[in-house]
Amino acid sequence: MIRVIGVDPGLRRTGYGVIETDGYRHRYRDSGQICPGQGPIPERLGKLFQELDEVLEAHAPDCAAVETSFVAANAGTALKLGQARGALISACVVRQIEVFEYSPRSMKQTITGQGGATKEQVQFMVQRLLGLAESPQADEADALGLALCHAHSRLLTPEGLAT
Amino acid sequence: MIRVIGVDPGLRRTGYGVIETDGYRHRYRDSGQICPGQGPIPERLGKLFQELDEVLEAHAPDCAAVETSFVAANAGTALKLGQARGALISACVVRQIEVFEYSPRSMKQTITGQGGATKEQVQFMVQRLLGLAESPQADEADALGLALCHAHSRLLTPEGLAT
Repeated sequence: MIRVIGVDPGLRRTGYGVIETDGYRHRYRDSGQICPGQGPIPERLGKLFQELDEVLEAHAPDCAAVETSFVAANAGTALKLGQARGALISACVVRQIEVFEYSPRSMKQTITGQGGATKEQVQFMVQRLLGLAESPQADEADALGLALCHAHSRLLTPEGLAT
Repeated sequence: MIRVIGVDPGLRRTGYGVIETDGYRHRYRDSGQICPGQGPIPERLGKLFQELDEVLEAHAPDCAAVETSFVAANAGTALKLGQARGALISACVVRQIEVFEYSPRSMKQTITGQGGATKEQVQFMVQRLLGLAESPQADEADALGLALCHAHSRLLTPEGLAT
């Protein structure tokens, strides 16, 4: 079994979800949101880094699956999202956790069979794949979906199983 | 005297410069560039974070002056620059170094008296203000210029001197 953390970055709200998987069977470990509040940007970036760092310390994942940014409509939005990603990815790399990136579309395709799936479809399939009693909140479902996407994409190959 | 680090973020090349200042007199301590190479983005972000972290450990600055991003022409560029900023700002915040942001224009205005100054003018004035034997390389000059800009902007006020 390896442990995978999925991260859905956002400067206002970042979702994370940790699973254990052997590529076939998956087990839910934890999920949550990091909401760094409305302070100055550096303070928010510091909170994203530090709160993710605590999650990484608690669960010691082997690798991370981070959502690649959709190409934002404007440069200001892209800059903000980029900053959040920079803080979160650094937190993983500093702990020597290998980072893989998946687009929202490929995550949805892998989890639901449809690249254009709705949030509700992702929540439903994540709940089902992990055997959860309740449907996870949307950002947590996305993060868990990324972790499951990584499990499916990498671990079913012989090379993936070897890591 | 307080110690200020200036940081000019870039995913390909980040300049930094450390000065000591009492708001009137400034002393050069160190400057350099962090070039994280051509690897995958997460690896580069990790290098930016870790190499800046080493500089912060070596010089223990009291605060950091980071260049705000010019609004990039396209979202892809903004995302890359944002990621670099996210990694570098996190490195400062994690060490509890307060981060201040200055636009390129306000740095140039403070250092040379002209918001539209050329790189050469910034290099010339940074060399002169710090009494350096040689003109610093352009990214280092920008970073030192940011540190000097912070010294001028904050420290000449009574509140600034108290910090």
